[in-house]
Amino acid sequence: MKNINLEKILSQISEEIHPFFGKGKVADYIPALASVDPKKFGMAITTVHGDEFVIGDADEPFSIQSISKVFMLTLAMQKYGEKLWERLGREPSGNRFNSLVQLEYEHGRPRNPFINAGALVVTDAVMDETDNALEELLRFVRTLANRQEIDIDMNVAESEREHGYRNAALANFLKSYNNLHNNPDDVLSVYFQQCALRMSCRDLSRSFLHLAHGGVSPITKEQVVHYRVAKRINAIMQTCGLYNSVGDFAYLVGLPGKSGVGGGIVAVMPGELSVAVWSPELNESGNSVCGMKALELFTTYTQRSIF
Amino acid sequence: MKNINLEKILSQISEEIHPFFGKGKVADYIPALASVDPKKFGMAITTVHGDEFVIGDADEPFSIQSISKVFMLTLAMQKYGEKLWERLGREPSGNRFNSLVQLEYEHGRPRNPFINAGALVVTDAVMDETDNALEELLRFVRTLANRQEIDIDMNVAESEREHGYRNAALANFLKSYNNLHNNPDDVLSVYFQQCALRMSCRDLSRSFLHLAHGGVSPITKEQVVHYRVAKRINAIMQTCGLYNSVGDFAYLVGLPGKSGVGGGIVAVMPGELSVAVWSPELNESGNSVCGMKALELFTTYTQRSIF
Amino acid sequence: MKNINLEKILSQISEEIHPFFGKGKVADYIPALASVDPKKFGMAITTVHGDEFVIGDADEPFSIQSISKVFMLTLAMQKYGEKLWERLGREPSGNRFNSLVQLEYEHGRPRNPFINAGALVVTDAVMDETDNALEELLRFVRTLANRQEIDIDMNVAESEREHGYRNAALANFLKSYNNLHNNPDDVLSVYFQQCALRMSCRDLSRSFLHLAHGGVSPITKEQVVHYRVAKRINAIMQTCGLYNSVGDFAYLVGLPGKSGVGGGIVAVMPGELSVAVWSPELNESGNSVCGMKALELFTTYTQRSIF
Amino acid sequence: MKNINLEKILSQISEEIHPFFGKGKVADYIPALASVDPKKFGMAITTVHGDEFVIGDADEPFSIQSISKVFMLTLAMQKYGEKLWERLGREPSGNRFNSLVQLEYEHGRPRNPFINAGALVVTDAVMDETDNALEELLRFVRTLANRQEIDIDMNVAESEREHGYRNAALANFLKSYNNLHNNPDDVLSVYFQQCALRMSCRDLSRSFLHLAHGGVSPITKEQVVHYRVAKRINAIMQTCGLYNSVGDFAYLVGLPGKSGVGGGIVAVMPGELSVAVWSPELNESGNSVCGMKALELFTTYTQRSIF
Repeated sequence: MKNINLEKILSQISEEIHPFFGKGKVADYIPALASVDPKKFGMAITTVHGDEFVIGDADEPFSIQSISKVFMLTLAMQKYGEKLWERLGREPSGNRFNSLVQLEYEHGRPRNPFINAGALVVTDAVMDETDNALEELLRFVRTLANRQEIDIDMNVAESEREHGYRNAALANFLKSYNNLHNNPDDVLSVYFQQCALRMSCRDLSRSFLHLAHGGVSPITKEQVVHYRVAKRINAIMQTCGLYNSVGDFAYLVGLPGKSGVGGGIVAVMPGELSVAVWSPELNESGNSVCGMKALELFTTYTQRSIF
Repeated sequence: MKNINLEKILSQISEEIHPFFGKGKVADYIPALASVDPKKFGMAITTVHGDEFVIGDADEPFSIQSISKVFMLTLAMQKYGEKLWERLGREPSGNRFNSLVQLEYEHGRPRNPFINAGALVVTDAVMDETDNALEELLRFVRTLANRQEIDIDMNVAESEREHGYRNAALANFLKSYNNLHNNPDDVLSVYFQQCALRMSCRDLSRSFLHLAHGGVSPITKEQVVHYRVAKRINAIMQTCGLYNSVGDFAYLVGLPGKSGVGGGIVAVMPGELSVAVWSPELNESGNSVCGMKALELFTTYTQRSIF
Repeated sequence: MKNINLEKILSQISEEIHPFFGKGKVADYIPALASVDPKKFGMAITTVHGDEFVIGDADEPFSIQSISKVFMLTLAMQKYGEKLWERLGREPSGNRFNSLVQLEYEHGRPRNPFINAGALVVTDAVMDETDNALEELLRFVRTLANRQEIDIDMNVAESEREHGYRNAALANFLKSYNNLHNNPDDVLSVYFQQCALRMSCRDLSRSFLHLAHGGVSPITKEQVVHYRVAKRINAIMQTCGLYNSVGDFAYLVGLPGKSGVGGGIVAVMPGELSVAVWSPELNESGNSVCGMKALELFTTYTQRSIF
Repeated sequence: MKNINLEKILSQISEEIHPFFGKGKVADYIPALASVDPKKFGMAITTVHGDEFVIGDADEPFSIQSISKVFMLTLAMQKYGEKLWERLGREPSGNRFNSLVQLEYEHGRPRNPFINAGALVVTDAVMDETDNALEELLRFVRTLANRQEIDIDMNVAESEREHGYRNAALANFLKSYNNLHNNPDDVLSVYFQQCALRMSCRDLSRSFLHLAHGGVSPITKEQVVHYRVAKRINAIMQTCGLYNSVGDFAYLVGLPGKSGVGGGIVAVMPGELSVAVWSPELNESGNSVCGMKALELFTTYTQRSIF
C-alpha cells in the first residue's frame, strides 16, 4: 500500500458516510441490541506491517454477533482440518440466513458454517474436542487482538436465549438429523455467548490480520493457522460471509468479509491489511448500511480489491 | 344399513386382508412402538343404533398417536369455536406431515390441526383454557368410550420425548412466530402424552360415534358437540386426516377418517356408523397398510361412502 | 329431498347474497374475462328425479374455465381407467393452482388432475387416444347437458393463448420430464379451448347430474361412467376441486365440487342433486365469492351435506 | 509471475491429472455433446504480458456452453451499465442451475446472470439494443480471441433446441412475469446458438485476458470494458460462476471463473493471467472433473490466488 494515505482515506470516508445515516434500522429483536446509539461509526485498519489507522468510535466495543462464527470456525479447522466438511457444506445459501427450509431439503446438513445452522454444528464440533469451548474461544480472541479485557456481554447472551426460539428450533432440528452431538440446550448456550462477544473495530481488525498475512499474525508473530487454511477461510468468507448480500459485497467491495447484526463488518485485503467498520443501522439483509458503504468507498479510494 | 350383514362383512375382510401382511413396516422411530407384533389386526364397528361388531384384536389397546389430535381438536372447538382458526388453517398440507418448510412459508401459521405443528397449536390452545389439559382429555375420552381404564402409556410418552427433536424444533419454531402461548417444553410434554394414549379399536369406534350422529353420542346420549361442529370435524378429517394420502383415502375409501402411526385408523359414515381398524404395518405415508385396505373393502362391500 | 322446498331456498339465497357483491374481483388476466358484468348471479339445481330449479342468470352462458377439467378427466378415465394414475397423482396440492415449484419437487408428476399441470397431462392423455379431443369433448358435454348450442368462445381461447406464458412454461416443463406425449403447443391449444367452453348454470348442473346418480344420467338415461368412477371423480373434486380452498369448501359447504375463474362452481349432492352457481367476482383463491356463499347457504338450508 | 515456470507447471499438471480421468461423466442430454472423446484434455495460459503457454488439446475447439454467458453479460453491461440490474440479481443461487423454484419465489427476477433464467434475460436485453445479437456476439468474441474462424456449431444449437424444453419453460415463465421483452422462441433461438459457440482453450484464455488486466486487452490494446466493469464481472464469476460449486471452487482454486457443460472452465488471476482448461467429463454439479483439479493444482503450484 505504498503511496496510499490510509489516514486521509479514513477521514474522507468518515465524512462521505454522513448521508447514509438513518437509511437502515438497528437490530431490535432483543432489547440489549436495540438500545445502541444508531449514529455510532468507527473504522480501524491494521496493515501487515503493523500500522494501525482508526477513526470515530473505533475503540468502543460492540456486540460482534455473527462475526464470532469466523473465530469458532478457525478453532474447528485447527481441530478437524478437512474432516470438518463431513458435517456441513461450504456453498452460499441463496436464502435468508436462518432458513430451516434449506436444512430440510438438505437433510440436516447445513450449507455453510456462517448460516446459523452451520454455526451451531461448528460450535458443537468444537465442544466435542475441548472441555470449555467458550474459554478457549475467549483465550484465542484475546490473544489475536492482544487485549485481555475482551469479554462476553452476558446481558446480550441472556437476552438472545430468551428470544432465541428460532435458533432453538434449528438446534433441535439438527439434533433430529443426528448432526448435533451435544445436547441442543448446551450448544445453544455456548452459541448465544459466543455471539455476545464484545469487541471494538480495533480488536476485530487486529484479530483478522493473520488472514491477510498467510495465517501468521504480524502482532503475535505466531502462525495462527496454516497458510492454506487462511486462504480457505477467506474463500468461505468471500462466498458466504455477508448473509444474503454475498454477491453485492463482492460486486461493490470486492474483499472477503464477515458481517454481524451488531453492525460490524470485517474485511481482509490479502497481503495488505485487515479492516473493520461498525455502524449499527442495518439494511434488509442484516448488514450495516454505513459499513457496506464505507468499505465500498475504501476499495474505490485504495483502488484495491481481490478482483 | 338395513339388509347389510356387518358381521359377515367383517369376517370376509378379516380373511381377505391376509395377503397384505408384510407389505408395510412397523413404526420404528421409538423402541416402544417398534416392539409391537406386526401381525395384529383388529376392527370394530359401532352403529348409531348402538350395535357393535368386532373382529380380531379389536379389544387390545394400542398407541393411538395422531388419532388423539381429533380429540384435542374437539376440546379446542368446544372452547373457542370459530375463533380457533385465527391461529391455524384447515387446508390440506400437500407435504409430509411434519414439514417445517410449509410453516416457514406461511409464517408460523400451521396449515391444519392434524399436521404436527397444527396439533401443537391446538394443544397449546386447550392448555390456555384449562388447568390440566391432559386430565380433561382423559376424562373426555373415557366418557366417550365408556371405559375408565383408558390411559396414557408413559413408556411411549417418555420415548417420544427422547426422540422428539423434530417436534421440539416445531414447537420452538412456532414460539418464534408467537404462535405458542405456553412454554415449548410444557406443550411438548402434553403433546407427547396425548399421542401416547392407549385405546382399542372398540374404544376408538365408540368415541368417534357422535361424529356419525350429529354430535350426539348414542352411547352417553349427550350432545358432545353441536351438530354443525360434528360436520366440520368430519370435513377436516376428510381433507387433512390421512397425512399425505388424503386423496388416496378419499378415492379408495370415501369416508372422513384419521390415522396414526401406531397403525390405527378411525372412519365415520355419517348417519350410519363409526369404524376403527388396527394393524401396525405402515405404508410410506405412515398409514396402516391393512387398515387402508380393510376400509376400502368395507366401503366396497357395504356399497356406502360419502360420495 | 322430500319436504324441502328448493324453489324457496333458491329465492332466499338469491336475496341473502346481496351483501356479498363487491367483495371480490373479476378475473382480469385476459380482457375477454375482465369485461363480464360483475353483478351477474345465477344458480341452477337438477335433482336425480329430473326436476330443475333455476334463479337469476342461470341460463346465461359463461366461461367455465377449470370446470372443464372434470369433463376431460372423465373422458380420460373412460379411456384409461386406473392406468391414468401412472402419470399423475390425486392428492391435494397445498399450493396455489399453477405452481411450478411442486412440479419440480415431484419430478414432473403433477399432484392431481385439477392443478393446471395435471390438467395438461389429462388433456395430453385424451389426445393420445382420439383424433380430435376437442370435438369429442364438445360432443360429450352437449349430450350431458342436452343442448347442442354449447360451444367454445374462440375469443377467450385466443386471449388465453396470448397471455398463457405460465401455462406454456408448465407444458414445456412437463415435456422436459417426458410427461407430455404430444407437442406442447398442440396440447396448449386444446387446453385453452377446453377452458373457453361457454355453458350456463343449467347446462353445468345437468352435465354433472350423473355424478350424483351413480354414473347414470337421469336425463339421457345412459351410464356415463361406471358407478365406481362417479364416486371417484367426486372424491377427487372433494379433495382437489377448489384450488387452495379445498378445506374451506369442505368445512363450509361440505359437498364435492369444482370451481373455475369464470366465477362458476358446480357441486354434487350424491343421491340427490347437482347444483351450479355463477357469479364472476372471485376471492383470493380464485373462487367465486357469492358462489361459495350461495352453496354454504344451500347446505345450511337443506341441512344436507356429505358429512 | 516472475520466477514461476508456467511451462513446467502445465506439464506437471498434465501428468498429475491422469488418475482423474474416468471419474466424471460426459454431458449426454444431447447427442452432439455426448459424442465427444472423454479423454480430451487441454489447457492454455495467457499472461498480461502477452506470453502464451499451452498443453494437450489446447487448440481444439469445443462447445463452450455456459461460458458464453460471460460474453453476453459483457455486451449487456456495455449497453446498460448498472441499469441491467433492474431486471436480475447478482447473488449466488444456492440451487441447481436451472431451477424454476427460485424464479417463482422471486417473482420472475433471476438471481444472477449465470443461471439459465438470468442468462435468458441478459440475452433478451442485448437483443433489445441491437439488430443481430448473435452477429455482435460473434464479432466480439472473434476480436477478443483474435481468430476469425470462431463460429457456432449449428448441429449443437439445433440439438439443444430439440431437447430444450426446460429452457423453453424458463423463457415462457420469465415472459409470464414480463421479464422478457422479445418473443420466448426468438430469445431461445439466440440463446441456444450462443451456447453452441465452439472455441479452443487458447481462444478462451485470450478472450478473458482483459478481465485480468483492468478491462484492457493486451492483445488488441483496446479497452474492452471499463476497469470497474472488469472487476465486477470477476466478482460475479467468483460468486456465481461454477453452478452449484461456487464455494468449492473458491475454497480449492481461489480464482474467479466460469464453467460450461462442454467441459471448459476459464479462470482469471487479476493482474497476472487468464487460464482455460478443457476436459469433457463432468462431476455432479456439471463442472469438469479434470478441469477443477487442474486449476486447483495450478493455484497450488503457482501459490497464487485472490485470497
